[in-house]
Order: sequence, then structure tokens, then C-alpha cells
Amino acid sequence: MAEAVKPEKKAGRRKVIITCAVTGSVHTPTMTPYLPITPDEIARESIAAAEAGASVIHLHARDPKDGRPTPNPDVFMQFLPRIKQNCDAVINITTGGSLGMSMDDRLAAPLRAKPELCSLNMGSMNFGIFHAGEKITEWKHDWEKPYVEKTYDNIVSNTFAQIERVIRELGHGCGTRFECECYDVGHLYTLAHFLDRKLLEPPLFVQTIFGVLGGIGPHPEDLAHMRRTADRLFGADYQWSILAAGRHQMGLATMGATMGANVRVGLEDSVYLGPGQLAKSNAEQVAKIRRILEELSLEIASPAEARAMLKLKGGDQVAF
Amino acid sequence: MAEAVKPEKKAGRRKVIITCAVTGSVHTPTMTPYLPITPDEIARESIAAAEAGASVIHLHARDPKDGRPTPNPDVFMQFLPRIKQNCDAVINITTGGSLGMSMDDRLAAPLRAKPELCSLNMGSMNFGIFHAGEKITEWKHDWEKPYVEKTYDNIVSNTFAQIERVIRELGHGCGTRFECECYDVGHLYTLAHFLDRKLLEPPLFVQTIFGVLGGIGPHPEDLAHMRRTADRLFGADYQWSILAAGRHQMGLATMGATMGANVRVGLEDSVYLGPGQLAKSNAEQVAKIRRILEELSLEIASPAEARAMLKLKGGDQVAF
Amino acid sequence: MAEAVKPEKKAGRRKVIITCAVTGSVHTPTMTPYLPITPDEIARESIAAAEAGASVIHLHARDPKDGRPTPNPDVFMQFLPRIKQNCDAVINITTGGSLGMSMDDRLAAPLRAKPELCSLNMGSMNFGIFHAGEKITEWKHDWEKPYVEKTYDNIVSNTFAQIERVIRELGHGCGTRFECECYDVGHLYTLAHFLDRKLLEPPLFVQTIFGVLGGIGPHPEDLAHMRRTADRLFGADYQWSILAAGRHQMGLATMGATMGANVRVGLEDSVYLGPGQLAKSNAEQVAKIRRILEELSLEIASPAEARAMLKLKGGDQVAF
Amino acid sequence: MAEAVKPEKKAGRRKVIITCAVTGSVHTPTMTPYLPITPDEIARESIAAAEAGASVIHLHARDPKDGRPTPNPDVFMQFLPRIKQNCDAVINITTGGSLGMSMDDRLAAPLRAKPELCSLNMGSMNFGIFHAGEKITEWKHDWEKPYVEKTYDNIVSNTFAQIERVIRELGHGCGTRFECECYDVGHLYTLAHFLDRKLLEPPLFVQTIFGVLGGIGPHPEDLAHMRRTADRLFGADYQWSILAAGRHQMGLATMGATMGANVRVGLEDSVYLGPGQLAKSNAEQVAKIRRILEELSLEIASPAEARAMLKLKGGDQVAF
Ligand SMILES: [Zn+2]
Ligand SMILES: [Zn+2]
Ligand SMILES: [Zn+2]
Ligand SMILES: [Zn+2]
Repeated sequence: MAEAVKPEKKAGRRKVIITCAVTGSVHTPTMTPYLPITPDEIARESIAAAEAGASVIHLHARDPKDGRPTPNPDVFMQFLPRIKQNCDAVINITTGGSLGMSMDDRLAAPLRAKPELCSLNMGSMNFGIFHAGEKITEWKHDWEKPYVEKTYDNIVSNTFAQIERVIRELGHGCGTRFECECYDVGHLYTLAHFLDRKLLEPPLFVQTIFGVLGGIGPHPEDLAHMRRTADRLFGADYQWSILAAGRHQMGLATMGATMGANVRVGLEDSVYLGPGQLAKSNAEQVAKIRRILEELSLEIASPAEARAMLKLKGGDQVAF
Repeated sequence: MAEAVKPEKKAGRRKVIITCAVTGSVHTPTMTPYLPITPDEIARESIAAAEAGASVIHLHARDPKDGRPTPNPDVFMQFLPRIKQNCDAVINITTGGSLGMSMDDRLAAPLRAKPELCSLNMGSMNFGIFHAGEKITEWKHDWEKPYVEKTYDNIVSNTFAQIERVIRELGHGCGTRFECECYDVGHLYTLAHFLDRKLLEPPLFVQTIFGVLGGIGPHPEDLAHMRRTADRLFGADYQWSILAAGRHQMGLATMGATMGANVRVGLEDSVYLGPGQLAKSNAEQVAKIRRILEELSLEIASPAEARAMLKLKGGDQVAF
Repeated sequence: MAEAVKPEKKAGRRKVIITCAVTGSVHTPTMTPYLPITPDEIARESIAAAEAGASVIHLHARDPKDGRPTPNPDVFMQFLPRIKQNCDAVINITTGGSLGMSMDDRLAAPLRAKPELCSLNMGSMNFGIFHAGEKITEWKHDWEKPYVEKTYDNIVSNTFAQIERVIRELGHGCGTRFECECYDVGHLYTLAHFLDRKLLEPPLFVQTIFGVLGGIGPHPEDLAHMRRTADRLFGADYQWSILAAGRHQMGLATMGATMGANVRVGLEDSVYLGPGQLAKSNAEQVAKIRRILEELSLEIASPAEARAMLKLKGGDQVAF
Repeated sequence: MAEAVKPEKKAGRRKVIITCAVTGSVHTPTMTPYLPITPDEIARESIAAAEAGASVIHLHARDPKDGRPTPNPDVFMQFLPRIKQNCDAVINITTGGSLGMSMDDRLAAPLRAKPELCSLNMGSMNFGIFHAGEKITEWKHDWEKPYVEKTYDNIVSNTFAQIERVIRELGHGCGTRFECECYDVGHLYTLAHFLDRKLLEPPLFVQTIFGVLGGIGPHPEDLAHMRRTADRLFGADYQWSILAAGRHQMGLATMGATMGANVRVGLEDSVYLGPGQLAKSNAEQVAKIRRILEELSLEIASPAEARAMLKLKGGDQVAF
């Protein structure tokens, strides 16, 4: 059938970056037995995710004893070199850390590792995961329940000044680029503010995030509005990526992929593979979204292609 | 990760109707060697599509000699009973016919067969497929080139009076329900007009169609706007389905499926399976979209489930 | 309060073109006693509208005997020179004519007058005004009731070939530019088709029309979608204008003006000034929208400014 | 012209609540000489705004010495009774306070005054007004420059727990209802969370706020998305209102009014009346938006009508 308009991008040519966020700081050990905790588990999950098709691995660290999120650079250093040695994926380290960490804490590991890519949350916000604990009666570790409940009265802090500090110290200081995490429309405007001031340079890597209580929801209209806003503010100067929380993960990532987005999966964002079915590994989620992308005639970006798309400094320019 | 809102529909519970439009009247034999032409080919393709997962088969007829669209009920009667005998899929007959057919022509086969479902285009429009012939230098049959070119100066005619006639004769007269084809936003308002006058009863089966020159385009924003308009006008009174022309077929069907839509594929709508790759059968397209739906944890509606969702009179109430 | 983004256009600088459509072919004499019918009335209403702030006057002609729409160039020639003599407004002549006119009819007056601007409907469509007669029991003239009712079974005809003919004969032949009337999203894509083929040159003057049964509705979401589609397809290459039917006239024109649109008012589009209150003249509607625009710190475009914005050939280059 | 759809609300019947926010805590004395500072000025501006058509007066207090925002209930008590005595407008007191105030500070005046209505910000956020000082070289007071600059590194704090506290103490404790301030889409979801938990009861009064750096921007698409999200989450259970920062104030309020919103103006939100033109009083802004509303055939809600629309306890149930 004839088509109304010429393609903006040739079908089948676009490469899609799959990011895998392997452990994060949102889920706790009680929520899924498959969450990687120790450096060894994190390394193995990361390498398997890369082998399954992820070209970017987003990483937090956890205390090997009890799975509590930790900013300790020494823990990061137990898995970063090992992942690097075993795969070519881009390594992306959180600057968000978790509840109660200071900016110095949050920057410690990134400043030591000087990775190609770090996440950077573009605003302060409520981040409510207190729901996650409501059905759990037996917790594996003492820290988990108060950790989750504390999000009812906690703010994720990313003031303009804090964002500027991360950009200057990590970006200008270490050549690191950013996965700019946008949990709501205002975060896109904040990102535009830093772009206008030339503190950030294109191409931007814009991770739009859906379904966290405190941020924008997981409705298709929300996704559509984030995309049209990013298109308006950044034009051709950005690579768009989608991350949806919990059971919305695969549906919204797929919806986004049909609209031109890159995708992020991983146990940080959802512990599920399907309704009521826990993912047994990060790689399972990567493999699933990869099958969908390939059915849609979209090709997976290799790590080298991801580096080119995001203009990264290269895997040989890091400090691990 | 915690989720911001409660699900509107429980994930994994919704059933998705796959409609397959096996031959149509848009494509011509030169465009693909896989287009079913003869009653035998149409029957075989329909049955295979049903076996692959289609619960609705949308049908036009073609002159077995040269593949030209025909309204001749005798030709329809050569494949309708055979399809019915070999599968349980709902049979859906066009009332649009093709270029140059009168309303009497267009209604002849449906009034004879009294099917459970017929397509019904909700407005008059330009329908430009003249592009489709631009790259073709050798045509198999003489009728094809002028047929395609004539769409530059032709109107697909569906006045309010013509729509009312179809509803009264086929709908009220034969118990047939409609796949209400909406090629633009105004068609949805026209459908609302007939619903308001109670000429049509819910549940409506609303086929939104993207990418025909003369109608709305294939941009994700177009899909989003058709959906929000249908939601506003019809609330819970409709089953939504997506059909996109040409290479947009799989992408938009998938996007729609993530948003709650049913889907339509088939060689009437696109001759491709992937970029530059002709589909070798209708069943190939059905199988592909089915794999995508299942990866998304969506279940395929059986013919019986489709009948229940659309409140059809039953496969035993037809005249073939 | 601080503002999140820099202005796209400096507030207060943009000039807004007010078009006034003084009589049209939709309303009939019974619907309002204020509809101008005779050449004298049409001329007086046009001049008064221009004095009130309209920089473009859109014109149809009517049979002075009974108010029936007429394509007769001689009738047009009874008011065109007089309007030209008495004001500087751009004169814009319909190419749509009305029910039952042939293309030759529709082009007769424009080809004779060679105006700076003509309307051009970008598609074939149902155009249902049959509702308008439902509450009327006594008609002034015999032709009115069947005229209105016939829209239930009539198609407004603007095939691709017909549109091309108008562009070639009037546009390329006479230097006339077009008020491209878009009644639905598909009309915008059709306009993009002619722009892509370079049959039309920017700046386009895109009149988006809301609330005619058969075309897109009058919901704010409809307006928003037409705008975003035009932005995407035409970028900076167009001047946007809004026309809404009936009681939606002022509300949508105002909404559009806050979003960057030019506006069209006039008795062709609505016979009202407010709820249940007939406008006593076209100028009343012009004055009302002008007051609103000025409260919004928007300036009215003079005829000279409108000519510059639309790149018109000049009021001295016409054949009247 | 015929209309495509039946009106959702009868034109001309809907009453529009004008809220006037007379002083706020965003602007400082140097920014405009017309900002009311002393209790006397605040009272006079409030009464004049009410006389001009505002049915709700939103109030902060300032230190009479230097205009610095103050939470001191004694200062509030110098103008609240006087306003109440002189007009019938609903009095609405901030719970946001300003930079550096504790929750106890922020609640002191509302808990003492027990007003019918209080503002309640539905999330924590960056709130960047540091731009506002960039062009100012001479400040009237020492506190102003650091106050504005500090917003670069400050978070407006409204955790889930803090919101719940305000709802319980003021709402359940004093019968106060809330102007729920939503600066971004996530704030609407947070509001839905409290509605779901039945901590809040409909009708909600949803103030959507555009153009603060840190929140959603002032683009018409932003306004459209906030409205469609509120419609989806709250259905008929809410009264929508619009507030836009700075020079977007009148345009977006007008756009919203054409879409069904109530409006908020006042010097808290913008110091302007038109481009480059300072408003000489709050009443000037109220009068301007009122003229626009009346041109659009919208009627102004009286204080009694506003009380009915918002289900307020009544002006005789307050503690001042
Ligand atoms: Zn993370
Ligand atoms: Zn068909
Ligand atoms: Zn006209
Ligand atoms: Zn305030």
C-alpha cells in the first residue's frame, strides 16, 4: 500500500542501544533471589547481559554481606575490571547512589573509575518505592524494610548546583559523558538549561523514565509527551532511551523502540520477565527485548556502535 | 521498581484479535508474486493465516484470470464455504470493493453471504496509491497501471447516506457487525454520529488505519491521537484495532498492541515482511506479529474469544 | 517568576492575520437575517470587516434573487472592484464553490479575477451540514432545505488531480497563492505531498478547520494535533490559521492565537457572536476577536503586513 | 456551520474561578515597585483584586521592614481579618512558605487561621528563580540577591510524609481544602495517590503550574498534556486551574480557559501586564483576564459560586 510520507529514518538501518541495569539500588534481596549482590555475581550478570546483546552496562554496587547499596569505590573495583576484561560493553556507573548518600559518596566511585558513561538524574524529586514492601512479610535483612519505607519521607537530591558539580568534575574533569535520567517533563527542561549554558555538549543520551511514584507515570501518553518534548528541545542533538519501572518495562520499551528509542532493561528497573514471572537473570530480559527488536527489523548496536552514537571517549580511557 | 499507578487492565489477561486481510484490492499481481488471486489461493492463504493465529479473515475477491478486484458474489462463493469448512476464524467481507464499483456492486457479495463481520469505511476520501506504480516498468496485466494511476483522480465514496444504507441492509438486515475503518480523525467523529443516532450498537470494532495518502499518516503521534479521540468518543464501548500501510505495518501494529489495541496484518495492507523483503505468505505476517505479541505477554484471541469480544452472531448464522 | 525556556518568538512582536469570510456557501438566508446576499451587501460587509481589522477578506458570491450560492463571475465582478476601491484588504476567492458545482464552475471567477489569494480544500470529504436545518420549520426560499439536506449524500470533491489543476491554473497561471484548507490530518499530509513535489512553494498559508461533520472535530486535542502535525511537516515554512465552525469559532480561534496561529472569523463559519446571540455583522466578529488578541498583547497584521507574511503578489496585480 | 459533536458543557454556562495570588514569595521588592509588602498593602491589593473579579485570594506574608517572606502568623493576622471584612472572596493561605522554612513554620499561619483553602505543592522539586536576578545590578535590600541565587542549590521540600501531614492537620483537622499545586506530571500522579488512599476527597482543585525551571515548561503541549493527564486520573472529580509564570501568564491562562480551566493571576506569578510593561496592581491583571473571559462568553464565578464549586466550608468557619 502506498505510504503517505517519506521515512524519517530508513527502516532497518537504525541501531538500537540496549542498556542493562544489572542491580541498582531500588530492589532488595527479599524481592527476588536473582538480584546480583556480590562483586562476583554482578560481574557474571553483567558479562552475560553483554553477551545477550546489551552494549551498555549500568552499575551500582552492593555490600556483599547483606546486599545494601554501597558507594564504596573498593567494591566497585572488584567487578569493574573483571567486566571490562570479559566483554566490550560500555560501563556506566551511577552517580545517584541511594538513600542517604552524600554527593561525595555518590561521586567517589565514578571519580575513581572515570568511566565512559555515568547516569545523572536531572532533578530533585520524591521517589516513592514504599509500595514495594507492602506485600512482604518476611524480610531477609533488617535494613530492607526501613530502607523501602523511608522513601515516603525522603527526597532524591539533585539541585542545579549538584548537577553542575557532577558535570564539571566527572564530565569536564574525566571525559565522562552522561545517561541523563529524566523522570518527568521538568527534567527535560532542566537538561535544556544545561545544554543552553553549554555545560553539556550534544549528542545527549536522554534516558526517559516512566512509572516511579513522584515522577511521570507509565501511560503511553506520558511516553508520547516526553518524546515530543525532547524532540522540541533537543532536535537531532540527542539519543533517546526508554526505561519503565516494574511490569511496564517491556511494553514501554517496545513502544519506544517503534518510535525511535533505544531501550534499557535490567533487574534495577524490574524483577519480572512476564506477568507474575520473576526474571532469572538480567540476560533473560536482554534476550527478550532483543528478540522483539529483531522481529521489528531493528538491529542491535554493538558496543563500538554505541560508542560512536554517544561519542564516548573509549573503553581504553577509563581508570580500571 | 515501584509503580506509580494501578493497572487499567491486568497485564497478560487481555486477548488480542489478529485480523488478516489476505488479498484486498490495493495491491496488484505485479507488486508481489505471493498475492493470492484465485479462489483456491485465497482459501489456502486464509486457512493458513487462521492456523498461524488470525481469528478474523478479511476478504476481497479477484478475477481468477488476471487478478483484477471483482465484486462478483459467485467468486466469493468459491472460497467462503471452503474457508469456513477448514477453520473457525471469523470471516469478514469488504463493503468497500474497489475503484469504480457501485454501491450495489459493493453490497452484492456481503448481502448474499451474510457474514458475521464486514468492513465499513467511515467516510469519503482521496485514496492515493499512484505512488505504488512509480518504480514498476513491466506490468503483468494491462489493467494494473491505469488502475493504480487512476487513484490520482478518484474518490473513495462513503457518504453519510451510503454508510447508513450499509448499516441498515447488512447490519440491521443480516445481523452483520462492522469493522469500522477510520482513515482519519473525522471518520471517528462520523462513527460517533452513527452511534449517537443508535444506528450502530456497541461494542464498536474500530479499525484505525495509518499511512494511506489522503488519510492520516503513519507517525506515532497520529496513532496516539486516533487512540485518544476514540477513547474520548467511545469510552469503554469499543475494541480498538490498528492497521498500517506498507512498511509501517509491523511497527505501528506493535506500538498499538503495547497501548491496548488489536492488530491487522495481511498482504492487503503490506507486501513486506521486513525492509526490502517480500512476505511469502499472509501466514508469515501473522506468525511474526504473533511472536511479538507473545513476547509482550499478550495472548492471542481464539475465534471464539474474538466472537465474544465483538458480540458476533456466530459462524453458524451465515449464508455460506 | 523565572521562566523555564527562552521565547520561541518575542512576545508582542508577532502580527496576527485576521481573515473574515463574509458569506460563504454553508449558511442560508433563513439561518440569519444578517447574511450578506447581494453584491452591495457583500461589499459593505467586507469593507466594514476590513475597517474593523480584517486584513484578508474571503469571498463567495450569491444569487441576489434568493441567496443561493453562485459561481457566476459576473456576480463576483459586482463586488470585487468595489471592495478593492474602498479598502486595502487582501481579497481571497473560494475555489470550493458549493454543492453541485463543476471544477469549471469553481474556477470561473478566480480565473477571471486573478486574485492574490484563493482558498483550496486539500481533500475530498463528506461535509455534513444537514443538522443545520433540523430546527427550522419555515424556510425563506425553496432551495434552502434540499440544499442543506443534500449534504447527507454529497461529497466535496478535491481529488489530487483537481488540486493539481487549481495549483497549475490559478497558482502557476495567475500568481495566486492559496489559503490551504485542511479539514483533517490527512489534508495536511496531502499538502505535504504537493509541497514535496514543489507544485507549491512556501510560505504555505494553512487554514486548519475544526468542527465540520466529516472532518476533524472541535476538541482542543484536535487543534493541538493539527498544529503539531503541521509543525512537523512544514517546520518554519508555513503561516498557521484557525477556523472553527459554529459556536466553537471564538474559543478555538483564541486558543489558536495563544499558540501562534492567525485566525479566521466571519458569517461563513458561524452566525453567532455569543451563545444564542446572532452576530449582526461580520465586523462584529472581527472586532471581538481583535479585542481578545489585543488583550493578549498580540498585534493585528495590516494588509501590507499580511501580504509580506504570505508573499502575495500585491493588490495591484489582480484582474479587477 | 454544522457542528461535529454535541457540547460537553453548554457554552456560556460554565463559571470561571479567578484566583489572585497577590504577593507570594518569589518576587522581591527590587523586581517591581508594585509588589504589596506591608499588611496594609496586602489587604488593599487583595480587596481591589476581589472587587475586580477574583473570587479566591491566595496569600503569603512579608516582613513589613524589608519585604522578606515571613511565616509569622501575627503578620498574617494583620491582613486576614481586614480582607475578610471588606470582601467576600475565599481566602487561601500558602503552606509552601519560602526558602528555608520548616514544616512547622509553613503550617503556623494556616493552623492559626484555619482558612477555607490552602495551597499544597504535590512534590519535592528544584525551583530555579536564580535567572530573575541576572539583570538586576542594584538591589533594594541585602537579602534579595542571595535569596534568589540560593534557588540554584535549594530543594522545595514536599515529601509524601509532609504532604500527608498537611492533609491531616489542616484538611482533616481544620476542614481546610486544598489548591493542589502541580508543577509537573508526576505531581498529578502523586495527587492521584492521595486520592486513591482517600486522604483527599473530591472535588479536587488542581492548580497546574507552567514555566518554573525545575517543573514543566510553558509550551502549549505541556498544558495539553497536564490537562489530559488530569482528565484521565480524576475524571469529573476535579476543578482545573492554570497558572503560568512570568510573561506566559495571560496567554496560557487564556488558552486554558478556552479548554475548560479556571485561572490564576497575580503578582506572585508575574509582575507584568504586557510585554515589558509592569502591572501596577494585582487588580489590573484580574481585570485583564476578566475582560478576556467575558469576550469568550465565560462568566466569572462569584465567591459564593466558587465555594460551591470547590465545596468549601464557608467564610464564617475560619479562625480570623
Ligand atoms: Zn541506577
Ligand atoms: Zn479490505
Ligand atoms: Zn469559503
Ligand atoms: Zn503561593
